[in-house]
Amino acid sequence: MSKKNNTDKLSIFALGGVGEIGKNMYVVQYGNDIVVIDAGLKFPEEDMLGIDIVIPDITYLTENRDKVRGIIVTHGHEDHIGGLPYVLRHLNVPVYATRLTIGLIESKLREANLLGETKRILIHADSEVQLGSMTATFFKTNHSIPDSVGVCLDTPEGAVVHTGDFKFDHTPVNGQYADLHRMAEIGAKGVLALLSDSTNSERPGFTPSESSVGDTLEEIFHNAEQRVVVATFASNIHRVQQVIEAAHATNRKLTVIGRSMVNVVTIASELGYLHIPDGMLIEPEEVNKLAADRVVILCTGSQGEPMSALTRMARSTHRKVDILPGDTVVIAATPIPGNEKDVGRTVDELFRLGANVIYGGAQTKVHVSGHGSQEELKLMLNLMRPQYFIPIHGEYRMLRQHARLAEAVGIEPENIFITDIGDTVEIQNGVARKGSKVPSGYVLIDGLGVGDVGNIVLRDRKLLSQDGILVVVVTLSKQDGTIMSGPDIISRGFVYVRESEGLLDEANRIVTSTLQRLMSENVNEWASLKTHVKDALGRFLYEQTRRRPMILPIIMEV
Amino acid sequence: MSKKNNTDKLSIFALGGVGEIGKNMYVVQYGNDIVVIDAGLKFPEEDMLGIDIVIPDITYLTENRDKVRGIIVTHGHEDHIGGLPYVLRHLNVPVYATRLTIGLIESKLREANLLGETKRILIHADSEVQLGSMTATFFKTNHSIPDSVGVCLDTPEGAVVHTGDFKFDHTPVNGQYADLHRMAEIGAKGVLALLSDSTNSERPGFTPSESSVGDTLEEIFHNAEQRVVVATFASNIHRVQQVIEAAHATNRKLTVIGRSMVNVVTIASELGYLHIPDGMLIEPEEVNKLAADRVVILCTGSQGEPMSALTRMARSTHRKVDILPGDTVVIAATPIPGNEKDVGRTVDELFRLGANVIYGGAQTKVHVSGHGSQEELKLMLNLMRPQYFIPIHGEYRMLRQHARLAEAVGIEPENIFITDIGDTVEIQNGVARKGSKVPSGYVLIDGLGVGDVGNIVLRDRKLLSQDGILVVVVTLSKQDGTIMSGPDIISRGFVYVRESEGLLDEANRIVTSTLQRLMSENVNEWASLKTHVKDALGRFLYEQTRRRPMILPIIMEV
Repeated sequence: MSKKNNTDKLSIFALGGVGEIGKNMYVVQYGNDIVVIDAGLKFPEEDMLGIDIVIPDITYLTENRDKVRGIIVTHGHEDHIGGLPYVLRHLNVPVYATRLTIGLIESKLREANLLGETKRILIHADSEVQLGSMTATFFKTNHSIPDSVGVCLDTPEGAVVHTGDFKFDHTPVNGQYADLHRMAEIGAKGVLALLSDSTNSERPGFTPSESSVGDTLEEIFHNAEQRVVVATFASNIHRVQQVIEAAHATNRKLTVIGRSMVNVVTIASELGYLHIPDGMLIEPEEVNKLAADRVVILCTGSQGEPMSALTRMARSTHRKVDILPGDTVVIAATPIPGNEKDVGRTVDELFRLGANVIYGGAQTKVHVSGHGSQEELKLMLNLMRPQYFIPIHGEYRMLRQHARLAEAVGIEPENIFITDIGDTVEIQNGVARKGSKVPSGYVLIDGLGVGDVGNIVLRDRKLLSQDGILVVVVTLSKQDGTIMSGPDIISRGFVYVRESEGLLDEANRIVTSTLQRLMSENVNEWASLKTHVKDALGRFLYEQTRRRPMILPIIMEV
Repeated sequence: MSKKNNTDKLSIFALGGVGEIGKNMYVVQYGNDIVVIDAGLKFPEEDMLGIDIVIPDITYLTENRDKVRGIIVTHGHEDHIGGLPYVLRHLNVPVYATRLTIGLIESKLREANLLGETKRILIHADSEVQLGSMTATFFKTNHSIPDSVGVCLDTPEGAVVHTGDFKFDHTPVNGQYADLHRMAEIGAKGVLALLSDSTNSERPGFTPSESSVGDTLEEIFHNAEQRVVVATFASNIHRVQQVIEAAHATNRKLTVIGRSMVNVVTIASELGYLHIPDGMLIEPEEVNKLAADRVVILCTGSQGEPMSALTRMARSTHRKVDILPGDTVVIAATPIPGNEKDVGRTVDELFRLGANVIYGGAQTKVHVSGHGSQEELKLMLNLMRPQYFIPIHGEYRMLRQHARLAEAVGIEPENIFITDIGDTVEIQNGVARKGSKVPSGYVLIDGLGVGDVGNIVLRDRKLLSQDGILVVVVTLSKQDGTIMSGPDIISRGFVYVRESEGLLDEANRIVTSTLQRLMSENVNEWASLKTHVKDALGRFLYEQTRRRPMILPIIMEV
């Protein structure tokens, strides 16, 4: 496998997706050829106030743009494709993906006005793609979206395998089997380095089959005496198919609600990934014309997202659909960490409206994960039998657990590389070592701004969110520096002003006396005046309230 | 049980603890006698920016202060005692509690300078307390803090039973058995209304015994080749006792770190609830003098709280203790919903320092809940066999699940009351019905301010946290309204100023031209000027950035 006289070296690193869940982006470079795998986004951490989404810093790629041969996308989830509109704006390279994935990417690029200038290249499970000195082949995997693949990159140093997201589902929906034989064949030929999905590395055992959810759904639909509402991830097309089949089996019509659900159902039906019996689909407006036990409403909102269809229904603010007493609502998902409270609130509101709510994910058998558990991760490791192992897709503790599994199946600890974004693993003539770091990080997107919000802005937002702000304005005379107007104090987010007049009056007196004292001492540089006002006022307010609002002194001059 | 000629009525309601987890406070009123059970706090929801704690609105109690006979406290957790310092300041009534609970309350009252003026009355499991026309007796329960009791209030209408927090632990630590016989006796005499803990009503089966954790701990301590660090809830004295016993069994010394852990260990030892072998306790400074395999460090931080001992150690910012490679860290707790990410981050940081981290709560058997699961809730219902049932301690969905369990054991649905705070259940001559609402709500505490932060302030903090603020200041002439100085625009938390000079310059031009146009049209009321500036600037910024910062126009006059 290893050539002994390579003068170029192989370099493997993540620009996103290790030490975190989301914004997946991996880079394999051999000599002057760079292949990128995935370009995802992630949703902001709770301390990234006001931020909409986060994408990887691609400085390394833009600085080496002439070397980038293309971006291979493993599947159509946001944490793998969501960064594409931003990346492609700076890096016009071909995108390689399977049919459904291309469909979802195209919908994104159309919105971003990038469809025309982006070269999309359709791949199949048996495609072979030449990317400079590297050759990419693919293998089908099971995941919570159809058309997911893993990638095998043959490089002059040996084969680098990237699993994408995967589980092993032995009874998949729509017969989408993972290609065990192809994986075995790749493993038998020899794998230099394996990059494998660590999302569920903390979970013992096997992840149940997606088709187990179908059985539960059919039973629920059968027992429901009135309407059934099912909320799930729009992109989980296998789940959507099972909702359709349960509806068919129980003689119910189906309506689809929520922008992303309508979008995905449309694309997946057009591309043949979703099979809806003729006459089953109805418009939301037609729901009330049918008997309650003939209706299924499929919608977004399984994470309690504030603007989603289910949340609006739960709050009785949806324009088209009300939840009625006796409705059965199925939340066919598990809350993503951080969303537990929003989901709980939605469940509470649905119960208050009189619905029978089935929630709790795996416990109530209405959800299974799309990621393999520990036994499946070991199976992948044993199929591939890699010389070097780099766990990917996960927070640090997940990568660590995955490394432990790899050790358990016999990979030497010194051949396992747990990396942070930007950490390179370099392999030359069969020998791997940690290389130097490449530029990496995150780019925050807030509205139209890409990267114009940084740590200072976030720190200010945090401060403002805790104790609000006091603006102190005073107008001074240009001639002699005397106070011409003010000081005026305006506060927002600090105290309820009507109940705190005394406090603000006293604050005003403190600012005035501070200014007067400084003037009598001939202190008149603005910076110094501002600092003194800020300190005196801050001290007073902290004593009185134990709060530290932001204080913004403004001096005007006439 | 029911008297047929009562002219007074019995009224039962919650001022906190239903439709939420935390700030428990329940009221039982018969005629002119009011008994309060518990006075807890809760931690703020994520939308309560900058708020420290939340307590119940006690307007009803202060308006009826002459009727309040006392506050019975079921156990010493913050969600049952944390509101006392605020409540007692407005309502000086006796507090009834068991020994450990009194100890913890006194520590709180001392800090709040309320110890001298508050009457504390020690109760035992067999005490009988006369509270106006009502008589309170008690029964021992199992919970994650010793000395927990349930309350039976005998009223002229019949017995009202409040379970407090409970589980049934058949092998409790320190032999603190729940008093099944006393509960059976109360049930046999007849219970008019049962208020029972719903915290774990969503969990099937039985909650495991606390002593099962002890076995796990001893095995971990035994296998650890170096130091062991255990983080758990300070108040879980049974857990702390088991840490001590595991340390003893494996010949290790113990040091205690973290303010609340030191506080609780001190109080519990003094009162005899914790038994520490002579010579086992060492100071943190002595840790490094001992061999690594002779040390246990017991600390706070099991929820990943930013200022806690474990979090500081994980970030290498603790003054006294560093985590060393090879240390075993046990997080003997499950993250409370909302804390998952903080705990995950702490685990990641500990792994990065080279520690072996045992986390995951129930899955790794290092934690069990203090609340009974479904089978235990049914056991309590069957022991008490109440005529009326009011589920308490839980979000709405938990109350609903508990009601379902009650129906399953034979309580008529019309005899089950799911209430919101302030909803009264009135019982007269044996007949219960929903009564009118009493004042209720929450009081936000921010620093020293109690109730001075309301919805407007919170809304402003939310706005400020999302897109920051722009302050626009202009000084106008008193004579002719012309601009004397400014407009100046200062922003915080909006954009990184150095990269957005063009945007802010353009904003300035827009404000100037808006003002000039208005003046030429003789618009000179300040309110109107401000509104126009705000609108024009807001529109421009939204077009340019898709953000909506708060805009604060300030007009000065000279």
